[in-house]
Amino acid sequence: MNLIEETVASIAPLDETAMRDARDLQARLTKPPGSLGVLEEVSVRLAGLAGQCPPPQPEPAAVAVFAADHGVHAQGVTPWPQEVTAQMVANFLAGGAVVNAFAAQVGAAVTVVDIGVAAELEEAPGLLRRKVAPGTADMTAGPAMTAEQARRAVGTGIEIARELGARGARCLLTGDMGIANTTASAALIAAFTGLPPERVTGRGTGIDDATHAHKVEVVRTALDRHGLAEGHGMAPMEVLAAVGGLEHAAIAGFVLGAAALRVPVVLDGVIAGAAALAAAALCPDALGACVAGHRSAEPGHGAAVESLGLRPLVDLELRLGEGTGALLALPLVQSAARVLREVATFDSAGVSEKDAARP
Amino acid sequence: MNLIEETVASIAPLDETAMRDARDLQARLTKPPGSLGVLEEVSVRLAGLAGQCPPPQPEPAAVAVFAADHGVHAQGVTPWPQEVTAQMVANFLAGGAVVNAFAAQVGAAVTVVDIGVAAELEEAPGLLRRKVAPGTADMTAGPAMTAEQARRAVGTGIEIARELGARGARCLLTGDMGIANTTASAALIAAFTGLPPERVTGRGTGIDDATHAHKVEVVRTALDRHGLAEGHGMAPMEVLAAVGGLEHAAIAGFVLGAAALRVPVVLDGVIAGAAALAAAALCPDALGACVAGHRSAEPGHGAAVESLGLRPLVDLELRLGEGTGALLALPLVQSAARVLREVATFDSAGVSEKDAARP
Repeated sequence: MNLIEETVASIAPLDETAMRDARDLQARLTKPPGSLGVLEEVSVRLAGLAGQCPPPQPEPAAVAVFAADHGVHAQGVTPWPQEVTAQMVANFLAGGAVVNAFAAQVGAAVTVVDIGVAAELEEAPGLLRRKVAPGTADMTAGPAMTAEQARRAVGTGIEIARELGARGARCLLTGDMGIANTTASAALIAAFTGLPPERVTGRGTGIDDATHAHKVEVVRTALDRHGLAEGHGMAPMEVLAAVGGLEHAAIAGFVLGAAALRVPVVLDGVIAGAAALAAAALCPDALGACVAGHRSAEPGHGAAVESLGLRPLVDLELRLGEGTGALLALPLVQSAARVLREVATFDSAGVSEKDAARP
Repeated sequence: MNLIEETVASIAPLDETAMRDARDLQARLTKPPGSLGVLEEVSVRLAGLAGQCPPPQPEPAAVAVFAADHGVHAQGVTPWPQEVTAQMVANFLAGGAVVNAFAAQVGAAVTVVDIGVAAELEEAPGLLRRKVAPGTADMTAGPAMTAEQARRAVGTGIEIARELGARGARCLLTGDMGIANTTASAALIAAFTGLPPERVTGRGTGIDDATHAHKVEVVRTALDRHGLAEGHGMAPMEVLAAVGGLEHAAIAGFVLGAAALRVPVVLDGVIAGAAALAAAALCPDALGACVAGHRSAEPGHGAAVESLGLRPLVDLELRLGEGTGALLALPLVQSAARVLREVATFDSAGVSEKDAARP
């Protein structure tokens, strides 16, 4: 099966006619032109993605939390023990994490995907067991994944998007859990943007200066090890395999899967940003499905969204992951779409327009 | 009756014990400390306002859209005809405006308050007819309101907060409609912050350079007329009467009423910002109930929230009013509160904490 290539081939650019219709409609709605700011452009992109104006309402929504462990944890990049990944998965499944509280608030369903947790997880409602490997290998010593593992993880992400779509989801959100995953994210973002490690490596869960300096050097070592300096010319799948996490690969696939379904995908923070760089490298048109949910406090995230040309909707200094930033943005995306469906025009509401000859 | 003074006297400062409890609880929840950024402080303030941790969930929510006209419209500060205020009220009541779409999305009830529309409005479901006057007088020629009108409008705002609270609302949101109300807002913000007119006067619904320059001069004329230059020493109620709108006065009362009920009030944009300056001048502790919903594109709004020490939650270049920016922030406020009620602690979830001895 050639799932990745088939999916990429099926992704179309945004529909220009539907986008023009949406811009025309925005100008006729009972509000000053442009007064909904950034949300007007969100609505236009949703129309372009759906190929119709108004676009279907992006509801119901489903967040997929991709959980995986990272071999680079052995390099001492974080004070959190690796077993926290599996413990947090149990917390998600018990409904006790922030992602559960936020999802309940905004009416999104939570699915947890074991794409590579370094522990055996028992079957449980809400858990999809799709482990490709029990964590990646240490990227400073060799490739994090084999080429085959990377392909399987991307393919699994595509399949998860399809499954959630088949269950009725009309808006997908990315989530992630994996101790040490901001280290792999920094390496991916450096590799895809050409920025140096010190520009894209952050403090993750909140590390001290010494650990941060060490983390920067670990990222630099990994990039050097795999020949990923600026202008490296490596293919996106090779980059993912070299320094990515299993959840990065799966989220890249999830983005491709959403774009193929013409369903919007709201990206969470720095892990999703790194994964979206991979997805966009595989298929630039996949970006048309992406909404940047929030601006993470991680510096690499700013670099990623700038490179992708996305503007995050929420900017509240969050640095949690799990999908929390995407969930906070969901009502904004849904509100933007709803305007095109429900707001009256000047004509239909009998509201006077501004007088070009006045004041 | 001395409703304003009684209300002000009943407003207590935020409860320090409940705030400390909320900070302690945030530190024990299953997430890296501080990783919810600005939302952690929101949750702490909600606890302080309620006087308990966790605070009650701020649901259901109700937005009150205060509609009024402005005598300064005669000065040619906007190309929109004055009758649009009444036409938009009809649009709100028919469910056709953006405020209706956003309120439906986030599950808030919409109440429209005629506090001073320059037209007779018929009784209708969802409309509270509390007209104090059919619009203000032109503030460049004399006081916008009499002292008695200003007091009645503030008192009506307090009563509306009480009525919505009695109907079950546990979170209030401000909304506004009134052609030319950004001109009155600029005058109020200049008067309360001491900033010059050119710093706080914006383009409202989107006026051209010439109209904007004229609008700045109109604001300057009004401030001069009433002796409202920096260091003027006039009482807040006098300032409101001199250059405010009926909806500004009512929203100031609405904020006081919410604070007295210990219910959070989410402020919309520049009109609410100007009104909140008046409320804070009347009772600094009323600020404890306020959440700045969004950062408006109007320059005066930035000045108002900076002066109030509030950080807007949403920043998407909106400049519509109606309560739209407050409604977009509502799920963020509700999500912040929900974290304190629903998220498991490290202890209760059996999740390992970070190892202070590592790496």
